[in-house]
Amino acid sequence: MTSARQAAPTLAEALREAAAEIEDTLDAVLPPEEGPEAKLAAAMRYATLGGGKRLRGFLVLEGAKPFGVARASALRVAAAVEMLHAYSLVHDDLPAMDNDALRRGKPTTHLAFDEATAILAGDALQAHAFAVLADEDTHSDSGVRVELLRRLAIASGPRGMCGGQMLDMLAEQGTEEPTEASIGRLQLLKTGKLIEFAAEAGAILGKAAAQQRHALCAYGRDLGAAFQISDDVLDATATAEETGKATGKDAAAGKATLVGLLGLDRARAQAERLAAQAREHLDSFGERADLLRMLADYTIARRS
Amino acid sequence: MTSARQAAPTLAEALREAAAEIEDTLDAVLPPEEGPEAKLAAAMRYATLGGGKRLRGFLVLEGAKPFGVARASALRVAAAVEMLHAYSLVHDDLPAMDNDALRRGKPTTHLAFDEATAILAGDALQAHAFAVLADEDTHSDSGVRVELLRRLAIASGPRGMCGGQMLDMLAEQGTEEPTEASIGRLQLLKTGKLIEFAAEAGAILGKAAAQQRHALCAYGRDLGAAFQISDDVLDATATAEETGKATGKDAAAGKATLVGLLGLDRARAQAERLAAQAREHLDSFGERADLLRMLADYTIARRS
Repeated sequence: MTSARQAAPTLAEALREAAAEIEDTLDAVLPPEEGPEAKLAAAMRYATLGGGKRLRGFLVLEGAKPFGVARASALRVAAAVEMLHAYSLVHDDLPAMDNDALRRGKPTTHLAFDEATAILAGDALQAHAFAVLADEDTHSDSGVRVELLRRLAIASGPRGMCGGQMLDMLAEQGTEEPTEASIGRLQLLKTGKLIEFAAEAGAILGKAAAQQRHALCAYGRDLGAAFQISDDVLDATATAEETGKATGKDAAAGKATLVGLLGLDRARAQAERLAAQAREHLDSFGERADLLRMLADYTIARRS
Repeated sequence: MTSARQAAPTLAEALREAAAEIEDTLDAVLPPEEGPEAKLAAAMRYATLGGGKRLRGFLVLEGAKPFGVARASALRVAAAVEMLHAYSLVHDDLPAMDNDALRRGKPTTHLAFDEATAILAGDALQAHAFAVLADEDTHSDSGVRVELLRRLAIASGPRGMCGGQMLDMLAEQGTEEPTEASIGRLQLLKTGKLIEFAAEAGAILGKAAAQQRHALCAYGRDLGAAFQISDDVLDATATAEETGKATGKDAAAGKATLVGLLGLDRARAQAERLAAQAREHLDSFGERADLLRMLADYTIARRS
C-alpha cells in the first residue's frame, strides 16, 4: 500500500484531468436540449454529466496511451463507455429494480424526471453509445469501429451487464444459496465485462498485438473484480456522504456479496490479491502503465 | 386497390414464408435458455419469438433481393431489426409507459414475467441486436457492418425511436395542441426511422449505388408513415381479436393521432396517398420490387 499512498496525488490528479476531458466530450456528443423532445436529451444529460469518477473512461484513455492512439478517438470511446455505464445505473435505480433515490450525490433520474422518462433515457443512452462508436469520427478504420461495437455489445447484453443484473435480481430472491463461484460470475457479468472492455478498448483502437490486447483485458478483469469487492466493502463500511449513494443496502436487502459470504477481512484480502494480479498483467508495458498500476492500488484503498 | 386484392395471396404467402425464416433465424441467434441467467434468455425469447407479422424483417429481405445479397446475411439483419422492434414493444408496454396487458395475442412481457425482468429483457434485446449486426457472420465486410450499426443506432436513439416515444409521452400529457406536423414528426421518429432502416438495410448489405439506397429509404419513410396512420385507423375501428392487442386505446387516452385530428376518412386518404408515393420510389427497380409494391397496398388494406 506504500506505493498507493505515495502516488495518490499523481493518480488523483490524472483522474481529475481525465474526468474533465471526458465530461467535455460527453457534453459534445450527447444530444442538445432542443426541439420538442428536449426533455429526453435533458434526462440523458442529467444521468450522464456532472458526476462519477469516470473510472471506466479513465481506463480507456490510459489503455490507449501505450499505442499512441489519437486523444480524440480515445475520448469518444471513453464517452461511449460512460454513457453505457450511466444507462445501466439509471435502469438499476428504477423502482422495479433496486429502487434507489440517490446516485452520485443527486436524486436518481426517475425521481428528478419520472419513471417513463428514466426508462427512455437509459434506452436512448445505450443506443447513443453505439452511435458514437459507429461514427467515423471515432476512428477512420471501419474494422476498428466494428470491433469496438462488437465487444461493447457483448459486454452490455445477455452475456454481460444485463445477464449480471438478472443474476443479481435472482440472488436477491434468495432461492439458491450463494457461493463464491456464483457471486464471482454475477459480478464478472454485471460490472466486470464493461470494465474489461474499457481496459481493452485502447488496444483495439491502437491495433495492438493480440498479446498486448489480452494483457489489458486480463488487467481489466482482475481490476473489475477487485473494484466490485471493494464496492461491497464500502457499502458495508462507508457512509452515503462519502460515496454519494445509499450504503448499507446490501445487508439490508440480504444481498449476496463476498463481504457477506467471507466477512470483511477475507473479502479485503481477496480484493488485494486481485489488485496485485491485475498489476502483474501490465509487466510488459513498463512505465507507460504506471497510472493503471496506481489505479489497481487505488481501487482497494478508496473510500468512495 | 384492385392490385392489392389480386396479389394478396402472393404477398400473404411471401410474408408467411419470410416470417418463418426470420423466426428460425431469431431462434438461432437469441441466447439459449441455459445457465443461471436462463430467465433473462427466456424473457428475451418470449418477447421476440412466436408472433408479429415481421413486416420490418420482410422489408430487409425484400430490400436485399435486387442486390443479390446472401440470404443468410439478410436474415441476420432482419432478425436484428425484429429484436430491436421487440425491445421497443416490451418497454412501451411497461406500466410506467403505456401499461398494456396484451401484445401479439399474449400477455405482455412484464405480466408473463415481472417488471424488472421485462426492463432487462428489453435492454438485452437492444444490445443483442447490435451484437448480431457486429458479428462477421452478418457480412464479411466490416465497412458494411459498421454502416448497418451506425444507421440502426441512430434509428433507435434520441433522434429515432426513443425520441419518438418521448414525443408520444409528452403528447399524452396534452400540454400542446397537436398539429399534423407534430404528429408527423412523432410518428417518423417513433416508428418511421426503424422502418426506413429496414427498407434501406438491403441496399447497405448489397453495397448499392447511393441513388438506389436513397430510393429504398424514401420508400421506407412513406411506407412507415402510411403504416402508422393505418395502425391508428385500426385502433379506432378494429377489435382486439383482430389485432392481437388492445384497441380503442388512443381515443381512451386522448392520444393525438391523425385519425383524431383529421377524422377517419381524411386519415385513410392520407395513408393511401403515402402508399402510392411509396410505390413510386420503386420505379427504377422493375419487377424485383413487386412484393414491396404489394406491401404498400397491403399496409393500408390490412385489418390486423
